[in-house]
Amino acid sequence: MTTRQTCLDLDAADPLAGVRERFSLPDGIIYLDGNSLGALTRSALVRVNEATAQQWGRELISSWNTHGWIGLPQQAGRKIARLIGAEVDEVIAADSVSVNLFKLAAAAVRAQGPERTAVIIERGDFPTDLYILQGLAAAIPEIELRVVEAGGFQAALDDRTALVLLSHVHYRSGAVRDMAAQSALVRKAGALSLWDLSHSAGVLDVRLNRDGADLAAGCGYKYLNGGPGAPAYLFVTKRHQDILRNPLSGWMGHARPFDFEDDYEPAAGIDRWLCGTPPILSLTTLDAALDAFDDVNMPDVRAKAGALGDLFIEWVETRCAPHGLTLVGPREAAARGGQVSFAHPDGWAIMQNLIARGVVGDFRRPDVIRFGLAPLYVRHVDVWDAVEILGDILDSESWREERFQAVSAVT
Amino acid sequence: MTTRQTCLDLDAADPLAGVRERFSLPDGIIYLDGNSLGALTRSALVRVNEATAQQWGRELISSWNTHGWIGLPQQAGRKIARLIGAEVDEVIAADSVSVNLFKLAAAAVRAQGPERTAVIIERGDFPTDLYILQGLAAAIPEIELRVVEAGGFQAALDDRTALVLLSHVHYRSGAVRDMAAQSALVRKAGALSLWDLSHSAGVLDVRLNRDGADLAAGCGYKYLNGGPGAPAYLFVTKRHQDILRNPLSGWMGHARPFDFEDDYEPAAGIDRWLCGTPPILSLTTLDAALDAFDDVNMPDVRAKAGALGDLFIEWVETRCAPHGLTLVGPREAAARGGQVSFAHPDGWAIMQNLIARGVVGDFRRPDVIRFGLAPLYVRHVDVWDAVEILGDILDSESWREERFQAVSAVT
Repeated sequence: MTTRQTCLDLDAADPLAGVRERFSLPDGIIYLDGNSLGALTRSALVRVNEATAQQWGRELISSWNTHGWIGLPQQAGRKIARLIGAEVDEVIAADSVSVNLFKLAAAAVRAQGPERTAVIIERGDFPTDLYILQGLAAAIPEIELRVVEAGGFQAALDDRTALVLLSHVHYRSGAVRDMAAQSALVRKAGALSLWDLSHSAGVLDVRLNRDGADLAAGCGYKYLNGGPGAPAYLFVTKRHQDILRNPLSGWMGHARPFDFEDDYEPAAGIDRWLCGTPPILSLTTLDAALDAFDDVNMPDVRAKAGALGDLFIEWVETRCAPHGLTLVGPREAAARGGQVSFAHPDGWAIMQNLIARGVVGDFRRPDVIRFGLAPLYVRHVDVWDAVEILGDILDSESWREERFQAVSAVT
Repeated sequence: MTTRQTCLDLDAADPLAGVRERFSLPDGIIYLDGNSLGALTRSALVRVNEATAQQWGRELISSWNTHGWIGLPQQAGRKIARLIGAEVDEVIAADSVSVNLFKLAAAAVRAQGPERTAVIIERGDFPTDLYILQGLAAAIPEIELRVVEAGGFQAALDDRTALVLLSHVHYRSGAVRDMAAQSALVRKAGALSLWDLSHSAGVLDVRLNRDGADLAAGCGYKYLNGGPGAPAYLFVTKRHQDILRNPLSGWMGHARPFDFEDDYEPAAGIDRWLCGTPPILSLTTLDAALDAFDDVNMPDVRAKAGALGDLFIEWVETRCAPHGLTLVGPREAAARGGQVSFAHPDGWAIMQNLIARGVVGDFRRPDVIRFGLAPLYVRHVDVWDAVEILGDILDSESWREERFQAVSAVT
């Protein structure tokens, strides 16, 4: 049987134990919301101060060249590429997930020609993925949007399908899709797969090229720890790079942006997916944060995420057994991303009480409490202690009364 | 006749003299490139450190609410609104100029219906404005893009015109368009006007509503001093806010973004123009930088911009008379934005020499040297001294030989 000492022993043997020192974590908090906003790295803090005070403040415009601001989207993209099984010149940091999904989906449909204009997405996926495709279909009436039930994309594939947008890990349940099998299904139907990696990159051992993904986009501020609203990234596999055209053809994606020509000519390779001038301070923190992955093997990260999740589930179902928490999403580590979710009718109040006691997760309506277990800085003992606190709260008689007070402290 | 002492006297009497203290400027540099990258404010430096170390680092996810991250796009928008003659709920900070132009142009064409699908822009405008419309027209084949000669938009207006994209101040020459007259021409033709304010906001007394503008977008990192690649902003006048739909319908523009619904419903008012999660650190510096405009009257800013430009032209044409510099763009202050440009066959080498001597402007091919005179921190005496240094360089016999050495120092 697992004990707190078992957890301490597991942490001592953890190949990622030293990585936690790369983060600047607050005292007295067990932070289990890295799937929503990743923690601050020490390198990001140093570099954003340097970029602001010295590079911008003292050296001003020249820093675009002397400090490599102009190359940051590619530089961050190369670092992300290693984490997601892509070539270094297949990934670039740019804009937001929403904007990147729009770019890629619009480009894919256009490249597929007039006989293939249907785009498929499953209901219940992350809302912005649905919203962006709805906006795209409204802007380009030729596009037929098929919003199908969860699990139903395969049945909707046909010879008019241009693109399928799939979440690698579901934002609510944490369930992982089989990227290789589902990419193959999409490809067999003659369509392109577009993967949203927001909840998988940085926590799973993502292998885009091995698994046959065509396109992908993902978030910079969750498991990549890029900071609040950090730039996102996108992936276009080599074989599509010459064909696809970015509809958001801003100057930074031009073949010669500083020639100030009147006619757009897309840059070669991945660079064409840039649009406007990137937000350098936010991009700098993303680039710095990615250094926390230096020397980190993604299989180790994936294994630890699985172990932390297994421990969380086991201990909740033991320690909190009488309290009616129901696991949401997969029980098996292999089918689960970096988070564990439970449903409870009073989920919202429970989360407020947890936050008031220093355990930070989040709540998703109507009744889901969600815990992100970021393997780079969450320890086994943190999981143990968090569940102990959860158990204490549920065992107490007062937590339902405390809810309103607790809420006002965190809203 | 103007002397250096005249300049010192003008600075002493300048109502904006104290505003310079709000900036953190490097010693030994005369910075005349605020039209490309505005200078660092003291408040931005403080606030980005606070947002990184304390808000993100210590308080993590809760800062979205407790530190108002979620409201920053609107908060920055309200501050910008005062500078451009808009209502506080007509402006929002979001994305880049390029992305915002795409959103607004796509929305405008769609709202105009199938009988009006032509979009007009003039050749020689800022490249990304041209490129974005080219990308839009390629993505939505119904759109007819008319790229007309400079000065030719009026002749291209007809009953199929949906939208005209106009730069308020030309990025190269600094020439100002008559916003009231040209908005009226566009409106009379039944089209909508979309103004690019990148080179006018923060230096001219822009009056969007008084002058009948329909739509606008502009840059956060030039005269607004928001930092490298700071988020841009956009303006939609009240009468169009209910009609226009953002094609980039990301979750932050939803009526209830945190209800995680499957169907997009645009937020009321200006909020629908958000798309993905904004880059909070870059947005924080923009928001902080805008406080440099507190208590600043835009007519004073505009008057000083005119006076600095007049002084620059007068003193170049006096001090550097034999050296073949030709004024590019308007001579009259009323027709000029916040910059002055001169053409010279050796413009590139001249600018490299200036930079090596601590006078920072920029060069635009093929032969234009461009100087931005940001009224919040550039003094009359800075203009005087910059032209003195320019004269010294041109008078010397060695500057053509020095060019290669100088270049390597700044590339």
